[in-house]
Amino acid sequence: MDKDIFEIVRAAEEAKKQSPLVGSWTNFVTIEFVANVQLAAGGRAAMCFLPDENVPLATVSKATYINVGTLEPVAAQALPGAAKAAVGLNKPWVLDPVAAGLGDTRNFILKELKKYPPTIIRGNASEIISLANLWGLASAKGNVEGVDSTDTVEAAANAAAELVKYTKGVVAVSGEADLIINGEKAYRVTGGSEMLKSITGSGCSLGGLMAVYVSVTDALTAALTASLAFKCASESAQKSTAGTASFRTAFIDNLSLLDAETLSEYAKKHLKEANV
Amino acid sequence: MDKDIFEIVRAAEEAKKQSPLVGSWTNFVTIEFVANVQLAAGGRAAMCFLPDENVPLATVSKATYINVGTLEPVAAQALPGAAKAAVGLNKPWVLDPVAAGLGDTRNFILKELKKYPPTIIRGNASEIISLANLWGLASAKGNVEGVDSTDTVEAAANAAAELVKYTKGVVAVSGEADLIINGEKAYRVTGGSEMLKSITGSGCSLGGLMAVYVSVTDALTAALTASLAFKCASESAQKSTAGTASFRTAFIDNLSLLDAETLSEYAKKHLKEANV
Amino acid sequence: MDKDIFEIVRAAEEAKKQSPLVGSWTNFVTIEFVANVQLAAGGRAAMCFLPDENVPLATVSKATYINVGTLEPVAAQALPGAAKAAVGLNKPWVLDPVAAGLGDTRNFILKELKKYPPTIIRGNASEIISLANLWGLASAKGNVEGVDSTDTVEAAANAAAELVKYTKGVVAVSGEADLIINGEKAYRVTGGSEMLKSITGSGCSLGGLMAVYVSVTDALTAALTASLAFKCASESAQKSTAGTASFRTAFIDNLSLLDAETLSEYAKKHLKEANV
Repeated sequence: MDKDIFEIVRAAEEAKKQSPLVGSWTNFVTIEFVANVQLAAGGRAAMCFLPDENVPLATVSKATYINVGTLEPVAAQALPGAAKAAVGLNKPWVLDPVAAGLGDTRNFILKELKKYPPTIIRGNASEIISLANLWGLASAKGNVEGVDSTDTVEAAANAAAELVKYTKGVVAVSGEADLIINGEKAYRVTGGSEMLKSITGSGCSLGGLMAVYVSVTDALTAALTASLAFKCASESAQKSTAGTASFRTAFIDNLSLLDAETLSEYAKKHLKEANV
Repeated sequence: MDKDIFEIVRAAEEAKKQSPLVGSWTNFVTIEFVANVQLAAGGRAAMCFLPDENVPLATVSKATYINVGTLEPVAAQALPGAAKAAVGLNKPWVLDPVAAGLGDTRNFILKELKKYPPTIIRGNASEIISLANLWGLASAKGNVEGVDSTDTVEAAANAAAELVKYTKGVVAVSGEADLIINGEKAYRVTGGSEMLKSITGSGCSLGGLMAVYVSVTDALTAALTASLAFKCASESAQKSTAGTASFRTAFIDNLSLLDAETLSEYAKKHLKEANV
Repeated sequence: MDKDIFEIVRAAEEAKKQSPLVGSWTNFVTIEFVANVQLAAGGRAAMCFLPDENVPLATVSKATYINVGTLEPVAAQALPGAAKAAVGLNKPWVLDPVAAGLGDTRNFILKELKKYPPTIIRGNASEIISLANLWGLASAKGNVEGVDSTDTVEAAANAAAELVKYTKGVVAVSGEADLIINGEKAYRVTGGSEMLKSITGSGCSLGGLMAVYVSVTDALTAALTASLAFKCASESAQKSTAGTASFRTAFIDNLSLLDAETLSEYAKKHLKEANV
């Protein structure tokens, strides 16, 4: 565990040192929030929507973030193309299967993305279950209600394991305690603020943050670092604010100011190995 | 009036208790602000753009919010489809006819939406006048200048009355004092901060808020609750801030922290029956 | 120089007095930020995406802002159309050639825009170099990496001069010190906060601000006013904040509260004539 925490702290520091450019294909609701969270962690952000930008963006980026939150017709070609470009260039990419199961275009895109296994999949429990179902890896369907999960993290453990078997990457199930697994290890990250539910984009920006960290470290460390930094920054934000918009501001502030010692102490308390 | 205020306070409380999911089809400028305002009031937010999401989104949502602020080609099919889905499922929907009159696509969409009478129409005076004109209910045209009104609320009273006759719903004309009417009653809501004009999205988020409240109460109470909560939160925000971005933050904060007593006291001062 | 500063201060005051409407065609990441910055300076903001809104929007607007940051298929027709409408109506427009060089659609659009010479071009050094290259005015290519410049302002001086020769307008190269030139004069604007790099949209909103000021003054004064107001507001913001989101809030606050004396004093220190 000490080695894990050492790697986590190092990843957070490297992101600030290297300022990796992350190319994102993401939704319109939280696109600015994702960018500002990525910048707060030291990354740089560029967002695109057109298929002809698939290869150019992947080429200049260290990692790619794909979020299917709000789709337009062009996304049916652009999003699979972005994943293909990342994989073709041998660069990591993070999938955020927002509202998986809702709508034909979304489900078509998610099925297409199966061809280009993501380095990290991050979603809430319902989205992880639905994605495993869409990919033919599990028979259960998630109870997706808009962007909110109505399943528990626990209920998504099997689906997460099936996804990992297929992608050989990492799956992060967000919830009260995040479950983060690869083919060998499983972790739970506890803590975090309830107020994250009162602002839009907490899921998206967590995924976007993983894409920053996976630019400078391995997939498992990246997912853990993002999850811990997120929960740590949100907890401190809740302590200093009452209203939801002030919380949002303090949350980004805390991410931008997060130091190695705070992150390390937080990890010691909130990172736990899990059996799944 | 006491009964009205009782219902208004109850609506604000129910939104926090029930956390209704509102599906929105809205513009790119203020999409995040709308979502965060809906969340601040206790609602949940999901935004879509594709026609194949019309029925799935309406199905999981308690109410639908349609805002024609920034249109893309797909909106010509998606927005009428979203209204049709809401009406087909017998669920309330709120129309925000932003910049009605500006551009062929916008006017085409607004005309199409006449087929699916909205539960609440919320707009500034120029938009209400222009919508009544587009729907063939009034001969006057509104002086729409971008997203800003150059007509007075007073000047839109007739158009509002004609719209209500057609929709059998509620029309809310936003301005210095909001005019809110259904076929039987008319109210004016006074108060509010001038600084709402210095941030983008005050109109949109007011409409989005009405969609939250119409998920838990009748259309008239929903429009009044949103209008009062908005003006109350903005007034307090102005008292505690000077710059426009701090005002924006404090405004959302106040919405998220608004309690029954504050809202009730505010309503007693600022809600008035009107003759139109 | 005193006369310049007099004009700069007057432009800032006129924007607050006249509240000019600026029509924008801009990207999804920073669209709200651009609008709120324009409003903070006293302008009004309206954003569009459809070709059929080209003429109607230009007609009601005092100036047009075109930013190619995040493109969708419709932009290939809409953006050149917006520039054409502005020029056709003899109104000023500002071009922000974000990430020039990245992707075929972006480059096609930028080439089309050459037909309608912009009143002001604002970009980072790499974008200015790339635009001059795309327009056949320079042989060097900019090292665009996403939205970030990897060239120095100095390195873009020749490209800026070539662009000015072609447009007969103003070119503003943003960087540590901004270089702002027309066919006769050249200025450097020093100062500003490093933290502008830690929030998304500082370039876009600077361009959007120039469009506000060019609604009330000549192109050179407009670019200088925006650059000075920007750097002044950001410097003060950095002094009062630590985290990146608080900085963003304070920055907009400061813009909205900027008075004539502060701007004038700042200009005396930070505006310098340059030889290029």
